Amino acid sequence: MTNPVLEQLTERRSVRAFTGETVKEADLAEIIKATQQAPTSINGQQITLVVVRDKERIARIAELAGQPGIAAADAFVAFVADFNRTAEAAKLAGTEQVVERSAEGILVGAVDAGIALATFQAAAAALGYGTTPIGGIRRNPAEIIALLELPPRTFPIVGSTLGVPDRARLNKVKPRVPVESFAMAERYDAEKVAEGVASYDQVLRAWWDGQGLTQMGGYAQETAGVYSRIYYPEVAATLRAQGFEFTD
Amino acid sequence: MTNPVLEQLTERRSVRAFTGETVKEADLAEIIKATQQAPTSINGQQITLVVVRDKERIARIAELAGQPGIAAADAFVAFVADFNRTAEAAKLAGTEQVVERSAEGILVGAVDAGIALATFQAAAAALGYGTTPIGGIRRNPAEIIALLELPPRTFPIVGSTLGVPDRARLNKVKPRVPVESFAMAERYDAEKVAEGVASYDQVLRAWWDGQGLTQMGGYAQETAGVYSRIYYPEVAATLRAQGFEFTD
Repeated sequence: MTNPVLEQLTERRSVRAFTGETVKEADLAEIIKATQQAPTSINGQQITLVVVRDKERIARIAELAGQPGIAAADAFVAFVADFNRTAEAAKLAGTEQVVERSAEGILVGAVDAGIALATFQAAAAALGYGTTPIGGIRRNPAEIIALLELPPRTFPIVGSTLGVPDRARLNKVKPRVPVESFAMAERYDAEKVAEGVASYDQVLRAWWDGQGLTQMGGYAQETAGVYSRIYYPEVAATLRAQGFEFTD
Repeated sequence: MTNPVLEQLTERRSVRAFTGETVKEADLAEIIKATQQAPTSINGQQITLVVVRDKERIARIAELAGQPGIAAADAFVAFVADFNRTAEAAKLAGTEQVVERSAEGILVGAVDAGIALATFQAAAAALGYGTTPIGGIRRNPAEIIALLELPPRTFPIVGSTLGVPDRARLNKVKPRVPVESFAMAERYDAEKVAEGVASYDQVLRAWWDGQGLTQMGGYAQETAGVYSRIYYPEVAATLRAQGFEFTD
């Protein structure tokens, strides 16, 4: 494969080992510029980034997220669903905004945050930096909101670390479920999905064993271990406190 | 700028004018392979793509989405939040999955769909194809679910067109809100956001005028026109019917 974009996307991996070197301001500016060109629903631009570089604040985020490794990153970026910006637009237009009360509003904010995150991570990788998506920003969302001073009608959807990767300690690219159980022609095929889960469970188990990580579970054990409980129980209440209601 | 990844991301635009040429199977396979390497929360791989190439079915999706232009695309891809796959994993592990009942479950599915969409669009652009994200997949979600035969615990979060761009009719890259009102250091700054909305409203208005599109509104009018009403009122009820409950 010789296309540099495809090659980068196909070789993507989460980076958790950093050298401790500083992310250059000029590089960060380029990464942010590229991220801002990501599409947003109806060009509403309902995404705001909060870039945390203060090391004590990054350590606090690591604590709130329950992921001590975050503290090794040079920067932490929060991807905020920002219906405060669009409410300012509604005010300027002389109307009242209601989108944040609907389930559709949550979906738009979360999808656009995901789009921005993937764009940010691709731009960072292009300049040689490493990142890991951090869903743990939703573990103690009210505390993150206080730390980042987020106003009503906003929510910290997802985060990312950013730093210079320690190339001697790079993760390997992780295998995926069989492609025929991931992308289907015309219609969903539940049988292929079930078969894919069964075979991938063994593939992942063997992949961990191959790295000497015999304590890691297969796909079924690892996924079920998280998804059989409400693992971030503060999300719904904090969304409501910020003005998101899931109605209609 | 000479980095090919950054250049592509910074020059990104939605493509709505296609030549009608066919997307090559080998290219589609490469795009899907790159998309599958996108990260998913806890490696749950709760995203499934349904690739629609049947022209009558694409025309039906265009109708359901209320966007006739979709019918000009050679392919339409649905990005499905798939907690049916992870429920199969839970079954294999001998436990019961509950994640889809929590607000956190919806967020995870929507963020991961956004990540997959952005990766898909970057991979497609790398091979010379054009795309536009389609939130209209949520306009009549129950009908989309029926068309794609999606099982319980899944939801069609977002879609994308795919086709060969008509380069004589490319959109221009759209301006964005001032970068200092998009990316902030350490803390959210509500004043900068309000100032950014006011200045961008005029920038966008002038940008449309510069293309002779004097009927288009500024940022305030366009955004408020959509967000001052519940524009996709079927989302919450259809999510519930699929097993998503927003509790906890």
